[in-house]
Amino acid sequence: MKLASLKGGRDGRLVIVSDDLSTCVDASAIAPTLQAALDDWANIAPRLEALARDLASGAATGQPFDQAAAAAPLPRAYQWADGSAYVNHVALVRQARGAELPDSFWHDPLVYQGGSDSFLGCRDPIMLADEAWGCDMEAEIVVVTDDVPQGVTSQDARGLIRLVGLVNDVSLRNLIPGELAKGFGFYQSKPASALSPVFVTPDALGARWREGKLHGTLSVDLNGKPFGRADAAVDMTFDFGTLIAHLAKTRSLGAGTIVGSGTVSNRDAEGGPGRPVDDGGLGYSCIAEERMVQTIQRGAPETSFLQDGDTVRIWMEDEQGKPIFGIINQRVKRLA
Amino acid sequence: MKLASLKGGRDGRLVIVSDDLSTCVDASAIAPTLQAALDDWANIAPRLEALARDLASGAATGQPFDQAAAAAPLPRAYQWADGSAYVNHVALVRQARGAELPDSFWHDPLVYQGGSDSFLGCRDPIMLADEAWGCDMEAEIVVVTDDVPQGVTSQDARGLIRLVGLVNDVSLRNLIPGELAKGFGFYQSKPASALSPVFVTPDALGARWREGKLHGTLSVDLNGKPFGRADAAVDMTFDFGTLIAHLAKTRSLGAGTIVGSGTVSNRDAEGGPGRPVDDGGLGYSCIAEERMVQTIQRGAPETSFLQDGDTVRIWMEDEQGKPIFGIINQRVKRLA
Repeated sequence: MKLASLKGGRDGRLVIVSDDLSTCVDASAIAPTLQAALDDWANIAPRLEALARDLASGAATGQPFDQAAAAAPLPRAYQWADGSAYVNHVALVRQARGAELPDSFWHDPLVYQGGSDSFLGCRDPIMLADEAWGCDMEAEIVVVTDDVPQGVTSQDARGLIRLVGLVNDVSLRNLIPGELAKGFGFYQSKPASALSPVFVTPDALGARWREGKLHGTLSVDLNGKPFGRADAAVDMTFDFGTLIAHLAKTRSLGAGTIVGSGTVSNRDAEGGPGRPVDDGGLGYSCIAEERMVQTIQRGAPETSFLQDGDTVRIWMEDEQGKPIFGIINQRVKRLA
Repeated sequence: MKLASLKGGRDGRLVIVSDDLSTCVDASAIAPTLQAALDDWANIAPRLEALARDLASGAATGQPFDQAAAAAPLPRAYQWADGSAYVNHVALVRQARGAELPDSFWHDPLVYQGGSDSFLGCRDPIMLADEAWGCDMEAEIVVVTDDVPQGVTSQDARGLIRLVGLVNDVSLRNLIPGELAKGFGFYQSKPASALSPVFVTPDALGARWREGKLHGTLSVDLNGKPFGRADAAVDMTFDFGTLIAHLAKTRSLGAGTIVGSGTVSNRDAEGGPGRPVDDGGLGYSCIAEERMVQTIQRGAPETSFLQDGDTVRIWMEDEQGKPIFGIINQRVKRLA
């Protein structure tokens, strides 16, 4: 089953989307919003599934689904916790600044609490007040959980994942060093992120969803050119079950918690840092990683961070080349 | 006007509470939840105010208000951003571990993004799985904002504060050093916090609310004994307007954002670290601060962190000695 929220009000209006994303049907009579569905998933999901079957069979009449009319599936959420599961990415950051990667990073997940009061829709602009902040995209996988009890095991946590999607976790790179130096993590350096227009239940992903990971190429284009083609399951050190169990060590998590994978990153086939796509490599899911590789190899970064007018496109294709979660396609716009 | 949420469902049921906290009246016909009221405050607040006047005059019939039946006013919220506005507290933390306090800390607010998917009610137990985690209370002031536009000034931000209350920001002290060393801020070290049963509009606080600060003694008792009697306005380096402007530098904030002051902390009258209440001082709003003062003065901490069965009581009294926001009164309970 695929779900989206059409724009309208603070929380959007829940619709079920056909597998090929061509049509959708209003589901607000079952649950007005996606959060309302997640609040009572055990009862609501079967009714949504029935409507999805009706849409597929033609028993329910759909309307055309326009991704540009979609809000984020959760336009606001009660929690956004983002991991750094691709330790390769973290290792490159450290290597670029000549710092050691503590061994613990390979077995103790790194997470941060992000802002969840506003998620951008997939076509909403990234409003940037100052290009000097070093605006970057970060293409990631997200999952949405049901209620998660404190102390859950990673195995049980996998069974509490209700939806899977993509995120562009917008980051202001030049604000990060000063903010992290203060010791309390990110705040100003993490403005609102954008979610893919469609979230999908794990069962509808078939073999792509296994062992708590999403398998497939996460495509990232920058200004219309291929920038990243990394596989989301490769080099993912911590699966989502492990990330959720880490989050729930000292507290429960409320239904509708969005958990991020961190920037998807693959090593090069030869084991070194990845090469750009036009160099035959898998590229990068954020500009910072390309800049780090440039710094490691040639002493200084070359690619600029996002400027006014730049575009970022993030999606994942199925076997037929069709986007599974729709397409995040954002333009950077100067805040007047 | 004073507002509370009676327990029921995930978001409680909105009630208006009389000034003396003795009675309340159901407001769910105006707005089912406090979040719903905040989502449309300009239209909803006047209707709630009218009902509050009816309750005060006897035109509306109230029922007894039982703080123990109250959930947190926002049992879950879309954002919880906590500051460290009492730089005295931060200076003591640093002094205790022999670290410099950067001068920037006196003019650049320190904040962290907290978890907002679950706030405990004022009498809910603090469920602790492991006493070795070093469980501590932190008594703070909170405000709840309306929608806040990106780039707001601190002066304008003050005008967007809709409600004021108290929080017990529960912290797991012994998990903090390891977590902060990883560089991404708090997560496991900050389990669910408890909110005061009643939130109050700034206008109803009269002279206690001025210059973006709450004036008055924040009382903290530990196991029935006076532990903290610091004034919430004294030594507050950053007023709430300044904190909100800091938060909104790179992004807007959604209505219902809860902003915390950080642990209230006053210097001693002689300028040194505060003395315990039973030593004639104003005491502390968290155990860690007392332990820091003990470390500075006698080389080692003496007071234990919270153990199974310990009780924490946090409140602020009006001129007649009555709690303004009700009383946070929690017991630590071992998670089975």
